[in-house]
Amino acid sequence: MRPLAMIAFGGNALLRSNQKGTYAEQLQNIEETCNELLPLLERGYHLVIGHGNGPQVGNVLLQHEAGAREYGLEAMPMDVCGAETQGAIGYLIENALDRLLTTHGIHRRVISLVTRVEVYPDDPMFQKPTKPIGPYYTAEEAKFLSEKTGAVYREDSAGRGWRKVVPSPTPRRIANIDLVSRLAREGNIVVTVGGGGIPVVRDHMGWHGVEAVIDKDLASALCAYEIGADYLYILTDVPQVYINFRKPDQKALSTLTVDEALDYLAQGQFGEGSMAPKVRAAIYFVTNGGKESIITEAGQLGNPACGTRIVP
Amino acid sequence: MRPLAMIAFGGNALLRSNQKGTYAEQLQNIEETCNELLPLLERGYHLVIGHGNGPQVGNVLLQHEAGAREYGLEAMPMDVCGAETQGAIGYLIENALDRLLTTHGIHRRVISLVTRVEVYPDDPMFQKPTKPIGPYYTAEEAKFLSEKTGAVYREDSAGRGWRKVVPSPTPRRIANIDLVSRLAREGNIVVTVGGGGIPVVRDHMGWHGVEAVIDKDLASALCAYEIGADYLYILTDVPQVYINFRKPDQKALSTLTVDEALDYLAQGQFGEGSMAPKVRAAIYFVTNGGKESIITEAGQLGNPACGTRIVP
Repeated sequence: MRPLAMIAFGGNALLRSNQKGTYAEQLQNIEETCNELLPLLERGYHLVIGHGNGPQVGNVLLQHEAGAREYGLEAMPMDVCGAETQGAIGYLIENALDRLLTTHGIHRRVISLVTRVEVYPDDPMFQKPTKPIGPYYTAEEAKFLSEKTGAVYREDSAGRGWRKVVPSPTPRRIANIDLVSRLAREGNIVVTVGGGGIPVVRDHMGWHGVEAVIDKDLASALCAYEIGADYLYILTDVPQVYINFRKPDQKALSTLTVDEALDYLAQGQFGEGSMAPKVRAAIYFVTNGGKESIITEAGQLGNPACGTRIVP
Repeated sequence: MRPLAMIAFGGNALLRSNQKGTYAEQLQNIEETCNELLPLLERGYHLVIGHGNGPQVGNVLLQHEAGAREYGLEAMPMDVCGAETQGAIGYLIENALDRLLTTHGIHRRVISLVTRVEVYPDDPMFQKPTKPIGPYYTAEEAKFLSEKTGAVYREDSAGRGWRKVVPSPTPRRIANIDLVSRLAREGNIVVTVGGGGIPVVRDHMGWHGVEAVIDKDLASALCAYEIGADYLYILTDVPQVYINFRKPDQKALSTLTVDEALDYLAQGQFGEGSMAPKVRAAIYFVTNGGKESIITEAGQLGNPACGTRIVP
């Protein structure tokens, strides 16, 4: 049986930190990232792709805000904005992968699913919004908006102003997940849980969107677990995970057991906004039956021993 | 075997002509339209849903334009904007249908696919852009933009200003169409060809987006044909098709053969921007093996003899 791998594309798969996010830049980035999947395709891996949407949904929020001011178009809530980015990014990944497959004569299909992810309304994170989104405001604007809408605003640590913060609840269930598994095992490349999935809560009447952002690595880890993937690749902008990062005694890690990873996490070795959530997602996957989580950059995938491998 | 029906949601399924397009309005409209599908679900029909995106993609274009002016975010091309609306509308339909299914204890899944539709680069319509999109400009602005970008602008017949016009090429092939057929016949409700599909052309390197809009009724008719649907329902804001529309001798049509429909089309009985493309889509379907195309409004679906039925 062919191995099944879940690949979580990092934000830089689509937008590099020094870029503005033009169409040409995004096309090129996506194409480069997708091309790096070739070694896995050539080894016959079945693939499911998750992806972030941080910069893209940030842009959509700004566009909606500008559209409200200039044209009186009501800005849509987070869930709809997230859904918009799933459509756009899924489409761009489809085109890029399709070019790769065509060029190399590989007969696989790419299927992008609009994907809702259930969160629990009583998730404690709803009491602790932490994820900054959208434009920066002055303290006065933030105060006004907060009083008007009830949303929480927090001052940016780099002094760029105040931003709305939304909760990041734990993903609990991925819509149509059995379909993802089936389509991937038939050889299709499935794109799902874009941006961590569209967060919805369920009541007796069905599902409703909520104002929240689901961590895309955690959603990808849940997806990997639920489809019974063998491997979870978490792609980022460094080839390996480091301890003492950017210090004189910085050390790259090639293998990491769950216990070691938990120790390093407890020591604060991994940045909260960057590597820590990836390591946690990796731990989630391997403690729930996954063989191995690999944290690396896309360009390393040709090397079967690439990255930092988190094992049970 | 259960009948398979393709349903093309009209623009007013999501946004009524007297509305601005707030979130609350769109939610309510989608919910109302989806609820009208209940009689078909109760009769055991397998369903595939296509939908328009005119007002939504119009709003996205305005938001991108405003975002460019206010935040320097490059406006994305039509194909990406269309993909954004597929994500958002597919998501809202999923939530609405899911509520309907839950409320009535019907066990079906809803699956929204990001859907590219191939058009031919030598389609003669590329020489004749006709479909107005995006904001209105003054004659001077339109001239400036046209010289700068090469796009075509045309004066609105109602005197509201100048608008960009893009081609509306014929849809030729729907990506993953065999998957749509299979999933629908398994009982899943599949949402596809949103906004007529994301228009792409294919060359030896794969698929690329193009600046165009595919007629959503025609794309739905192609989809209905390719999945071997029994029925194509084209939902609009009138219960039937009329001849001598809004004249003293106005007459509703309950059945229409292809020959009769072609005659009325030749007489100019059906408005070019409204009923004519629907009748053409209906003709396409029944001349390619479909049993019946039904043009009606969503609220009529409970009556098995509803609407105007176009038959071979």
